[in-house]
Amino acid sequence: MNRQVDVCLTPELINLYDLKGQIVVVIDILRATSCMVTALAEGVESIRPVATLDECQQFGKRGYLTAAERGGEQVAGFDLGNSPRAYLEGAYAGKKVAVTTTNGTLAITRSASFAKQVLIGAFLNLTALANYLRQQPEDVVLLCAGWKGKVNMEDTLFAGALVSMLKDTHEPCCDSPLAAMTLYDTVKDQLFDYLMQASHARRLSKFGVEDDIRFSLEKDIYQVIPVLKGDELVMMQSVVQ
Amino acid sequence: MNRQVDVCLTPELINLYDLKGQIVVVIDILRATSCMVTALAEGVESIRPVATLDECQQFGKRGYLTAAERGGEQVAGFDLGNSPRAYLEGAYAGKKVAVTTTNGTLAITRSASFAKQVLIGAFLNLTALANYLRQQPEDVVLLCAGWKGKVNMEDTLFAGALVSMLKDTHEPCCDSPLAAMTLYDTVKDQLFDYLMQASHARRLSKFGVEDDIRFSLEKDIYQVIPVLKGDELVMMQSVVQ
Repeated sequence: MNRQVDVCLTPELINLYDLKGQIVVVIDILRATSCMVTALAEGVESIRPVATLDECQQFGKRGYLTAAERGGEQVAGFDLGNSPRAYLEGAYAGKKVAVTTTNGTLAITRSASFAKQVLIGAFLNLTALANYLRQQPEDVVLLCAGWKGKVNMEDTLFAGALVSMLKDTHEPCCDSPLAAMTLYDTVKDQLFDYLMQASHARRLSKFGVEDDIRFSLEKDIYQVIPVLKGDELVMMQSVVQ
Repeated sequence: MNRQVDVCLTPELINLYDLKGQIVVVIDILRATSCMVTALAEGVESIRPVATLDECQQFGKRGYLTAAERGGEQVAGFDLGNSPRAYLEGAYAGKKVAVTTTNGTLAITRSASFAKQVLIGAFLNLTALANYLRQQPEDVVLLCAGWKGKVNMEDTLFAGALVSMLKDTHEPCCDSPLAAMTLYDTVKDQLFDYLMQASHARRLSKFGVEDDIRFSLEKDIYQVIPVLKGDELVMMQSVVQ
């Protein structure tokens, strides 16, 4: 127990965290990081997170598939939106994807320049991620993408799940990891129903993406860990299981 | 249920909230707002929150008692620190106090220019505050002072307690009020023990202020509601009970 885990509940607070030398796990359960885990596990070669729609289109011209979401909806003129299920059955295996989203891609680019390593977390790869982190000597910061700067429920719950899984090796160093863990432990047996009371899930349910929400709350469908290499996310090759 | 309650978990996020026309409740349980409730209930005439130690000393020259806390400890050269129990038994009845603290006073001054009304909340006046808010037509934002910009446990728990008490009249409009309420409902029967695992309480316990923590978690000792009038906090005169 000589390592620490902290939770940054929104990218707006990232300047309060010293990421130097730390492993950062970016979390955007609905739905950017659930997409990223699914895409790489289903054979996508690499994912380039970009900040703007324009930048995403530029990569489209260079042969990338383009995925764009704003305000929870796919943006017209792009190949894909933000549904993790779009990548199932190897639908885009071997492709490179450029992706821009309301919250998740910003969280990745903000942490990239400071952290020792940037990983992607989702319920879909929870245990693989926890197993990997337990083997590393570094402290860990879980960075929730939130919703337009505010704290959101699904990312906080996932952070709590991961803090809980790391409790034998990583001490919660501040109050937010402890709060997130208590919250997760309280509602973990009714995760979908509880989440549907939350504002973001309610908003998304209007777009008919309840199936995406159910899928994104499934645990351990995949064993992959997306890791940022340069400007692109790729599948980590040597994951300790 | 035509009103909303939101929770801003740290003053660092205050720019994401539209405070115009709203009632803001400032929360700094350990210990600024617990002090303010106690002081006014115990006869202090008014409290002037100020940002800096220097400003606090200037008010000292004008006849105010000075109360200063930084990093959880009283600052040398000031009359008082940040212990609510110092005001008990009318020890400073009739006096004016200028106060500066690490987190709480900043939260007050940041919200003062935008909100319709700024109130002070603590477990010590929880029910009086809830009863008042239920009678008002305005939406409510609960502003947690946090700890050096980060989210803290005790303020989040109090916010959750208040959201819970308002649930028949005010809808949680975002995820943070829902998370805070679930957290509070989960640990409310073991509030002191749970809080002692949290970082700020652990830090404070080193200064031997466990008695302050126990006192600050007592509910409904007082019926007063401190309200900001101009630059000073005074006791609200016509509280609906």
